[in-house]
Amino acid sequence: MNIETRLVPTFADIEAAARRVHGVAVRTPLINSPALDDRLGAHVFLKAETLQRMGSFKFRGAYNKCSSIPQEKRAAGVVAYSSGNHAQGVAAAAKLLGMPAVIVMPADAPRPKRERTAALGAEVVLYDRDTEDRAGIAKKIMQDRGATLVPPFDDPFIIAGQGTAGLEIVDDLAKLGLKPDLAVIGASGGGLAAGISLAMKTRVPETVFYTAEPEDFDDTLRSFKSGQRETNARMSGTICDALMTERPGELTFPITSKLIGQGVTASDAEVGKAVAYAFHELKLVVEPGGAIGLAALLAGKLDVKGKVVVGVLSGGNIDPELFCRLIAD
Amino acid sequence: MNIETRLVPTFADIEAAARRVHGVAVRTPLINSPALDDRLGAHVFLKAETLQRMGSFKFRGAYNKCSSIPQEKRAAGVVAYSSGNHAQGVAAAAKLLGMPAVIVMPADAPRPKRERTAALGAEVVLYDRDTEDRAGIAKKIMQDRGATLVPPFDDPFIIAGQGTAGLEIVDDLAKLGLKPDLAVIGASGGGLAAGISLAMKTRVPETVFYTAEPEDFDDTLRSFKSGQRETNARMSGTICDALMTERPGELTFPITSKLIGQGVTASDAEVGKAVAYAFHELKLVVEPGGAIGLAALLAGKLDVKGKVVVGVLSGGNIDPELFCRLIAD
Repeated sequence: MNIETRLVPTFADIEAAARRVHGVAVRTPLINSPALDDRLGAHVFLKAETLQRMGSFKFRGAYNKCSSIPQEKRAAGVVAYSSGNHAQGVAAAAKLLGMPAVIVMPADAPRPKRERTAALGAEVVLYDRDTEDRAGIAKKIMQDRGATLVPPFDDPFIIAGQGTAGLEIVDDLAKLGLKPDLAVIGASGGGLAAGISLAMKTRVPETVFYTAEPEDFDDTLRSFKSGQRETNARMSGTICDALMTERPGELTFPITSKLIGQGVTASDAEVGKAVAYAFHELKLVVEPGGAIGLAALLAGKLDVKGKVVVGVLSGGNIDPELFCRLIAD
Repeated sequence: MNIETRLVPTFADIEAAARRVHGVAVRTPLINSPALDDRLGAHVFLKAETLQRMGSFKFRGAYNKCSSIPQEKRAAGVVAYSSGNHAQGVAAAAKLLGMPAVIVMPADAPRPKRERTAALGAEVVLYDRDTEDRAGIAKKIMQDRGATLVPPFDDPFIIAGQGTAGLEIVDDLAKLGLKPDLAVIGASGGGLAAGISLAMKTRVPETVFYTAEPEDFDDTLRSFKSGQRETNARMSGTICDALMTERPGELTFPITSKLIGQGVTASDAEVGKAVAYAFHELKLVVEPGGAIGLAALLAGKLDVKGKVVVGVLSGGNIDPELFCRLIAD
């Protein structure tokens, strides 16, 4: 059964995605900081997807999905809805594959994200986060133009693409003679968490995973506890703009609930401190949503003493104004 | 003849330094950015010494020097004069080796720098820039306590230590099946430029090197032209605080003039743009002095088209206020 029919991605799909993105996606470094190790009393490795093409992991899944579109459907292009990072990933992937792209984006998305998407040649359609339905707008564009939807997370090609980061993490640790004990992965729709946990758990089954989410946007954690997909009460009100999704995905949740099943949260204040820590100590630019796992680690939410710990710095696209406010506090 | 007697470091000294710093210094990633490649029409690799222990390459040389001190002299400790990256590198190296360290710093050095150095357990001795001589103070501490001086650049162990970054660059490129065509290295006293050019040129003799310096602080470039060590007219007046040295070193200059022999300069405005580019596009925090090579590349000072180009992001210790001024539109 092929990947489109069975919908559930497998480890082999992640390996296939790795072959597709090879030489196109950046093989991002797995960063170790002696200062962070000393602070946490652990051996901590951060997968710097901030250094990925377009500044977040999203390019991986987007490129894997776009390159799966049959030749005869490519001229009609792709459409995506996104708060920003997925938009840039899709726009960059479409450009590299010579396909037109339409991106449906909230009007309050950080300016750099809007500008970069347009600079990649994508058509940007803005909508109001509180009153309009982005999925509906995208659906109309699909019908009108025959464009293929590139979903932000709920797609087997997207999940498999994000999973390629997990393969690289395990490979890089193996080169150091290490295996991961614990990994903390930010969760919004769950594409990254599903892909990385599937990749890492297949290779190192004893790894223990946690999702990390903003306080009050802990739909994944609540879903783990109730066993069904729970919904966030709001769709605004955290500095982690990349982590505001209504609920876990239909395809991602069965994977994350089985392979991860537990999670932690961090407050906006804790996330802000993590962004500042990344600036002062790690010399890395990390956006709030991309720093959620680091925030949980720094705030002591996880028992990491003596362990080989993996975190993912999932994105670095932050407004300079917000960045400067956070690093000054 | 051993390294102390002959003073001139060799490739074997760099290999010995690499064995000493292994597992202690961070093996920093060699970063490639598709966006930067596209902009320059070259295959560009940036050695991210911003991610080194204490945020700059200085730890490499400091650790190599400190670990060369004979056991019987270690209890008397080390002394260094610096208000910046070298101070932190020496303090961190001494701490790891269990040696006391005295850092001679100007009384008007920013408090955070004093505090960071003191937090590493170093004794900070303040002096008055206008009335006192830091070298004299350091000499007195050497005499009184029997402490060993750790010079900022003019020492064969320091040069060999900085050269370990060059070995890593060539090794990492080789893993990608590449060889460097051109490398641009920031020059102040010349320790990094001498060490890296010695390491890289020995392994890949056809590599062409350039130093990069701030405009009006181009003592190295003028020295290359005149064939003797020229002096900077001023010791203040550039945002590249890490690159203000009186003149090239007595030991470093013979190496850089032979192996490099040419250079470029960048204005403070060009350096500021490079710091901003690193934030917006590379998601890296780079201090002005650490961005001088990138500034020269972005400003088009070098013919890099189609070449495999190496730059060094030598440090990331920047004041948040200055950083925010530089990254603002």
